[in-house]
Amino acid sequence: MKKKKPNKLKILNDPIYGFIQIPNSLIFDIIEHPYFQRLRRITQMGFSNLVYPGANHTRFHHAVGCMHLMQKAIRVLRFKQVEISKDEETALCIAILLHDIGHGAFSHALEHSIVSEISHEEISLKFMKKLNKEFKGKLSLAIEIFEGKNSRKFLCQLISSQLDIDRLDYLKRDSFYTGVTEGNISSDRLIAMMNVKNDELVIEHKGIYSVEKFLIARRLMYWQVYLHKTGLVAENILVNILKRAKELAEKGVELYASSSLKYFLYNPISSENFTLETLEMFSKLDDYDVLSAIKEWVNHDDKVLSLLAKMIVDRKLLRVEIQQGIFNESYIQKKKEKAIKKLGIELDEVNYFVFHQEISNQAYNLKTPIYILNKKGKLKDIAKASDQLNLQALTLPVIKHFICYPK
Amino acid sequence: MKKKKPNKLKILNDPIYGFIQIPNSLIFDIIEHPYFQRLRRITQMGFSNLVYPGANHTRFHHAVGCMHLMQKAIRVLRFKQVEISKDEETALCIAILLHDIGHGAFSHALEHSIVSEISHEEISLKFMKKLNKEFKGKLSLAIEIFEGKNSRKFLCQLISSQLDIDRLDYLKRDSFYTGVTEGNISSDRLIAMMNVKNDELVIEHKGIYSVEKFLIARRLMYWQVYLHKTGLVAENILVNILKRAKELAEKGVELYASSSLKYFLYNPISSENFTLETLEMFSKLDDYDVLSAIKEWVNHDDKVLSLLAKMIVDRKLLRVEIQQGIFNESYIQKKKEKAIKKLGIELDEVNYFVFHQEISNQAYNLKTPIYILNKKGKLKDIAKASDQLNLQALTLPVIKHFICYPK
Amino acid sequence: MKKKKPNKLKILNDPIYGFIQIPNSLIFDIIEHPYFQRLRRITQMGFSNLVYPGANHTRFHHAVGCMHLMQKAIRVLRFKQVEISKDEETALCIAILLHDIGHGAFSHALEHSIVSEISHEEISLKFMKKLNKEFKGKLSLAIEIFEGKNSRKFLCQLISSQLDIDRLDYLKRDSFYTGVTEGNISSDRLIAMMNVKNDELVIEHKGIYSVEKFLIARRLMYWQVYLHKTGLVAENILVNILKRAKELAEKGVELYASSSLKYFLYNPISSENFTLETLEMFSKLDDYDVLSAIKEWVNHDDKVLSLLAKMIVDRKLLRVEIQQGIFNESYIQKKKEKAIKKLGIELDEVNYFVFHQEISNQAYNLKTPIYILNKKGKLKDIAKASDQLNLQALTLPVIKHFICYPK
Amino acid sequence: MKKKKPNKLKILNDPIYGFIQIPNSLIFDIIEHPYFQRLRRITQMGFSNLVYPGANHTRFHHAVGCMHLMQKAIRVLRFKQVEISKDEETALCIAILLHDIGHGAFSHALEHSIVSEISHEEISLKFMKKLNKEFKGKLSLAIEIFEGKNSRKFLCQLISSQLDIDRLDYLKRDSFYTGVTEGNISSDRLIAMMNVKNDELVIEHKGIYSVEKFLIARRLMYWQVYLHKTGLVAENILVNILKRAKELAEKGVELYASSSLKYFLYNPISSENFTLETLEMFSKLDDYDVLSAIKEWVNHDDKVLSLLAKMIVDRKLLRVEIQQGIFNESYIQKKKEKAIKKLGIELDEVNYFVFHQEISNQAYNLKTPIYILNKKGKLKDIAKASDQLNLQALTLPVIKHFICYPK
Repeated sequence: MKKKKPNKLKILNDPIYGFIQIPNSLIFDIIEHPYFQRLRRITQMGFSNLVYPGANHTRFHHAVGCMHLMQKAIRVLRFKQVEISKDEETALCIAILLHDIGHGAFSHALEHSIVSEISHEEISLKFMKKLNKEFKGKLSLAIEIFEGKNSRKFLCQLISSQLDIDRLDYLKRDSFYTGVTEGNISSDRLIAMMNVKNDELVIEHKGIYSVEKFLIARRLMYWQVYLHKTGLVAENILVNILKRAKELAEKGVELYASSSLKYFLYNPISSENFTLETLEMFSKLDDYDVLSAIKEWVNHDDKVLSLLAKMIVDRKLLRVEIQQGIFNESYIQKKKEKAIKKLGIELDEVNYFVFHQEISNQAYNLKTPIYILNKKGKLKDIAKASDQLNLQALTLPVIKHFICYPK
Repeated sequence: MKKKKPNKLKILNDPIYGFIQIPNSLIFDIIEHPYFQRLRRITQMGFSNLVYPGANHTRFHHAVGCMHLMQKAIRVLRFKQVEISKDEETALCIAILLHDIGHGAFSHALEHSIVSEISHEEISLKFMKKLNKEFKGKLSLAIEIFEGKNSRKFLCQLISSQLDIDRLDYLKRDSFYTGVTEGNISSDRLIAMMNVKNDELVIEHKGIYSVEKFLIARRLMYWQVYLHKTGLVAENILVNILKRAKELAEKGVELYASSSLKYFLYNPISSENFTLETLEMFSKLDDYDVLSAIKEWVNHDDKVLSLLAKMIVDRKLLRVEIQQGIFNESYIQKKKEKAIKKLGIELDEVNYFVFHQEISNQAYNLKTPIYILNKKGKLKDIAKASDQLNLQALTLPVIKHFICYPK
Repeated sequence: MKKKKPNKLKILNDPIYGFIQIPNSLIFDIIEHPYFQRLRRITQMGFSNLVYPGANHTRFHHAVGCMHLMQKAIRVLRFKQVEISKDEETALCIAILLHDIGHGAFSHALEHSIVSEISHEEISLKFMKKLNKEFKGKLSLAIEIFEGKNSRKFLCQLISSQLDIDRLDYLKRDSFYTGVTEGNISSDRLIAMMNVKNDELVIEHKGIYSVEKFLIARRLMYWQVYLHKTGLVAENILVNILKRAKELAEKGVELYASSSLKYFLYNPISSENFTLETLEMFSKLDDYDVLSAIKEWVNHDDKVLSLLAKMIVDRKLLRVEIQQGIFNESYIQKKKEKAIKKLGIELDEVNYFVFHQEISNQAYNLKTPIYILNKKGKLKDIAKASDQLNLQALTLPVIKHFICYPK
Repeated sequence: MKKKKPNKLKILNDPIYGFIQIPNSLIFDIIEHPYFQRLRRITQMGFSNLVYPGANHTRFHHAVGCMHLMQKAIRVLRFKQVEISKDEETALCIAILLHDIGHGAFSHALEHSIVSEISHEEISLKFMKKLNKEFKGKLSLAIEIFEGKNSRKFLCQLISSQLDIDRLDYLKRDSFYTGVTEGNISSDRLIAMMNVKNDELVIEHKGIYSVEKFLIARRLMYWQVYLHKTGLVAENILVNILKRAKELAEKGVELYASSSLKYFLYNPISSENFTLETLEMFSKLDDYDVLSAIKEWVNHDDKVLSLLAKMIVDRKLLRVEIQQGIFNESYIQKKKEKAIKKLGIELDEVNYFVFHQEISNQAYNLKTPIYILNKKGKLKDIAKASDQLNLQALTLPVIKHFICYPK
């Protein structure tokens, strides 16, 4: 690690928060690390920009935004006499900064195609451990908090809970960049209402309507943005492209790809064989590898690969229908037959073009409640504290079904 | 009416919408009329500025903002092939512009004190009819729509319904000026989702989450802003001041007051005897008459009047408690006894300083539903169209109780 | 002073800054003082709301906003190793909070009519000294800084200079509420660029373009907003109303007015005889006294007073022309003759209705420069530091002339 | 061209303007064309996101935003009785939509490296002509306007002049996404002030301060953002990477690259041999080709290429110094010697790592003035119309020099 000059860049512009300050040089060095810089090349919202053209913000920016909100939260809690040591402060900032560092290119698509059975959280942890070595143990406390193992429960809840700093930034940021102003939440106010009681992160009583609003805004963002049908179809095409490529790779077919993408296409990667080398390769893989390969695959000999790739590149996507109930088997069958004829593909290839799936979202989870601190100092689950709004109803997952097929 | 030059001021700046255009010279002349100019001197939110110092916007600005949104709504509906004639357009703009013209100084406080049994809607209608004479019948259609008597139901619903233009502006405006960003609604999107089906104003299916968000935001604004306890206590003190003043006036006690305020203090005014002269006097009465009188009454001989007046002027209000259930009779009694002793007042005066009341808000009213137009062209009450959120629960009024007493 | 509970209201909502925190209980008590609460009833921009209907913000809000920015500035300077003691911090906050407390109703109009030869700064100082007694000397340091007598020059410059906190708030706030977005300045960035060199408040080199932008924005606000012709005519009519009222009062004519307004109308008030009693009376006088009196004067027997009053109340103002050069004497004469005939007034009354005046604005004043700290640690006047933009030109006052007369 | 369903997506969300409407199906089809969709993969600001992490917006979004502002401008002008036919309206929208379609990956970097002597404007024109064929001549009028050949001069000026729609969008958009709020301009107001006089696009007199503000904001954006030193160094490294790659390609060295990037690396491309095939290849080339190749080149055998590539990928850039005057030859020499030693490179390779350059910006160009329409209907160059601000001074280009070398 090279020595840090005291005056190096410590302020970043943020269209949402104004200025973001980097609190100390350890955190500065982590941000400068290539592992973290890679997040500049991974968009936060994948292909949502095909629907919302403003949604090109990156995981880098989100992570840095989280760090900013974390500093605010710490300031608020300290003001309310919650003791948080200097070391805990740094650990919280690092933990939130790195909580998403294991995200792959185009976020979730990779997990469902070329890497199997390994979540981005696991990979985040691998990155943190590797960094901890490089930084000589200075990340240990951050890791403990990230893993939820710290004895002060609220520290862990700031990193991961139903009202964690992650959500406070991403809902605000995604709503800002998509222009879906209705998803906007008042992170400021929610943070101002935070407190700690019995080591539990809680919201003060007068913040109750803000929490309601937050849950409803999140629900809206899910159905209107994250699960927007055009985004869904694009993401699923991407998964299918990568699956097909992996299938071809397994057969030894040659594919244009960067060396890191090749590594993941031509090798079976799972939890078990995810070595430090794999991690290093993973750290080279970002949206640019994936999308530039897809662009080239438009001209690949394999018809399936080429057709799918062209859909993404030219934004001529499959048609998508969405409904409450499951799709009729005969309806699906008919769509498949039509697709086979129209595209001139084989029967065993049709599932790449006609597919259906369930999507669901649970607005509120009873198991890890958001606690409201009432005026007498008692904690109450928001689902019960709310005077009327049937938040209980929000605990049931909403399930919908969609089907995609060629236009 | 003096002839209008074509180039007279036709654009107003609005911090929320940017520029507001005045569509034609009839509307320009109505805006210039003293009846309408009076709205410049009536704040939209009464004493809420004692809690939210930014909330000094006027009914004038709100009315003009409504007119702006109405023009947007008309453009959207016409784009969707809903026919709206030039005359209907003008009538809609006038109706929304004048819908609140009957509001008294400090809004609702007057209705509960010096004027009895006459609502601001009735007075708005009186103003419109008077203006209609002055403008030679050009307001007739606007009045018909305002009264809900036009055969095209949606025209009336744009003026008054659970999703009318009035609400779309005031929620946005009040949230903007108070700084309670969580109350912010996307008027733009709600308007973009409007349509007409069977002469009924409806929201298209994909606007369903926006309607949910709108209802929750409105609910939040009620409990966090409109029914904020400090605002409540200030408004109730104001009502008590005016009641006391009227009481004194009836006894012939002299009171400093403008001529129009005197008119309402020294005469019994109700629906029955509300003549054109009364209307003219009402048109002179605004926040400035009321607050300047109160400032002077700080030094009045009547102790009750003077004590109450001082509370408002120096913002040293009564203490207020708020709770779900009703307050215990003996608790109230104790507060009264203490107040009598502390303030040195008589038993029959204590109710001016110790009082309790019920407040309630109904987030959604089933009787005049917000209709969602589903993909098959059918209408569904939002309470049933929403996939999960128990909007039904929102139809029950939430009731709370508060008590005020001297600190 | 009543004892303060630790948890009393310490946060205010601000549409511009989000939340404003009140740093300590001394400052809390000053804000609660009736002298300061009075600022809630004085608009920041006088009659500008006749042009910009959103401009109803008060001096109260501006003062509180300044306190917020001051805290930011202190944080920035401390971060850059400028030592500022706890006492100095409090003093700076108090000084900026009270810097405008001497403003009269409708701001500057009073100074030019019923009070002679006494500026609002002098009155501010009187208020501070009175408060200092009540608060047992705790305001002494604040007063020293306000008077520009503190040996650490930059402390005084934060309160009063060409780039003081006052300007940083009012330009931002006025631009926000008027909706004239072009006047918006980046207070945040300007503050972030502040530093102290040789006890002088300076701006770091990379803030040079921000300072330029600030000067141009201020210039724009002057000509487009503060000196907007409609605002000018309204303010001058107000001055004339008050002058006329004072004239009538001197003759013993009876005038409807609150006791504090009466005090200033019926007594000659100047620097010499401005006693503590005068101060107390002044502390009761606000926009409500003035405007409610004017409303009543619409029906006064004195034709001049009544005509002028009606203009303000109904917003039927005089016509105004504005130009670079001085108005021709014969042109003015013609307007006067017409006015006499049209209004049926006497020759010696015409000056109330036909008047002309010079207005001027100096965008930048060389005498108290804004210093830029260059990379080598040297100070340079912005007028010379700017690479090209001829800021020197901005030092010459721009002068215009206007004339008002009846339509 | 496939037939358009009437209800296809016609509205886009924009974080800046709210909703953007696509006016008709011809324009819809142009937007859907792969040539235009490619702009989704080209960032507006190149490597500025290395300084301003929010600056990831694309040329696609900018072009669509321009179309939105163009519709506003047309509405304003028509309101002022300027006749603009339906065909001209469509042509203006198309011309502004396509004005930047010839931009290469990472904007200007390409023009200075692998493509020689051909500007993006020329390529834009080639694209338009190609599209005109596909759309059967429907773009002819748009092309005429784009080329500045239409007889109605103001139509051309809306597309290209010192106050064209392009600038009105990009300044606003870039300031928004970078978070440099000071660059924000009031496009709305500038458009509201537009008019046409003698076929010349002009700004009405009362918009004079807005124009001043616009010029100053633009100047600020140049020096603070577009010519920010970190962005400069990144862009220059990119140029050097591409130059080096081309050099290697010419020698026959193998390089990982997409087929379209290969095409431009392995073939000499200039104005003369820019065929339709070249255009087709160009239409496949975007940021993803370039950045993914660079990522791979980190491991290339060529030391120069590999070192430079790593700088970009890990954001470990060269050091940069910037100053008014030219850099001393001996200073440069010293830097070169140090670099050779430090990096272990050859003398003829050092210019890739140590280089100096002149940058300049001219805030206002007298040759194609912005005209102000004064009250008497006369046109005046803004440089002379401004009452005081020495805009003349802004016509001189500001020149600075920078040098880059290894840290």
